[in-house]
Amino acid sequence: MIRWPLPEPMALALAAARDARDAGEVPVGAVVVKDGAVVATAHNAPRALHDPTAHAEMLAIREAARLLGDERLAGCDLYVTLEPCPMCAGAIQHARIARVYYGAADPKGGAVEHGPRLFDRAGSLHRPETYGGIGEEEAAALLRGFFAERR
Amino acid sequence: MIRWPLPEPMALALAAARDARDAGEVPVGAVVVKDGAVVATAHNAPRALHDPTAHAEMLAIREAARLLGDERLAGCDLYVTLEPCPMCAGAIQHARIARVYYGAADPKGGAVEHGPRLFDRAGSLHRPETYGGIGEEEAAALLRGFFAERR
Repeated sequence: MIRWPLPEPMALALAAARDARDAGEVPVGAVVVKDGAVVATAHNAPRALHDPTAHAEMLAIREAARLLGDERLAGCDLYVTLEPCPMCAGAIQHARIARVYYGAADPKGGAVEHGPRLFDRAGSLHRPETYGGIGEEEAAALLRGFFAERR
Repeated sequence: MIRWPLPEPMALALAAARDARDAGEVPVGAVVVKDGAVVATAHNAPRALHDPTAHAEMLAIREAARLLGDERLAGCDLYVTLEPCPMCAGAIQHARIARVYYGAADPKGGAVEHGPRLFDRAGSLHRPETYGGIGEEEAAALLRGFFAERR
């Protein structure tokens, strides 16, 4: 089996996911990259922030847009350790993210290759290129470990 | 034709939508109510905030969760002048909003009675009660006027 080296932004997203776990949040991390440079890194934080929308992707997208001074992130890529949910997939479309690289698939909550498959719908607002399964082993292991401890 | 009186929170949401229009933002407003009392009011502000996620619903939900100190808004109702998009419908589910009252339908961008119909999907995370068409005439007229001016 060929194993590709993990892209650096996904390694950072996985590190952010570990930070989330250590903070008692569901371990998901995200990184926004523009022209090869990291613009924003975030992890899930709905509990700490008392914010149901505080998924890693949302926080990274909002921070990147704030820093770039633009409500659109055209030309930016997003790396996230878990397949985005409908909320985050919608935000990715509103932000006009060019490419989405994600780790573990999420058959129950995902909205990219599962469920509503928002990017593939007819009349879709915006269709980023998407690449799944990048760093998925560690991403999935972090999630399994987190939920196993809480059962 | 019977016309129901406009619920007070929807009148507030429509006032917020007019504020959005006056600020050059797409005219959509939202209000979160708990036990009959308004908790948070917001309007669309992605341009002003440089935030692609700053839809009226998102801002109202985030503010309500912050004020209530809870990442979930169980028992809260949301009034919004336009059918929520996938991002906002997903946030409504994450927040566990009990009831959603919306004004104008959005055949292109909506995700409640159109497109992915997120609340109706098998295995849906959370299914709020939904009521559409409340204050829809004014809500739709505001949007038509806004986009007509910009064409």
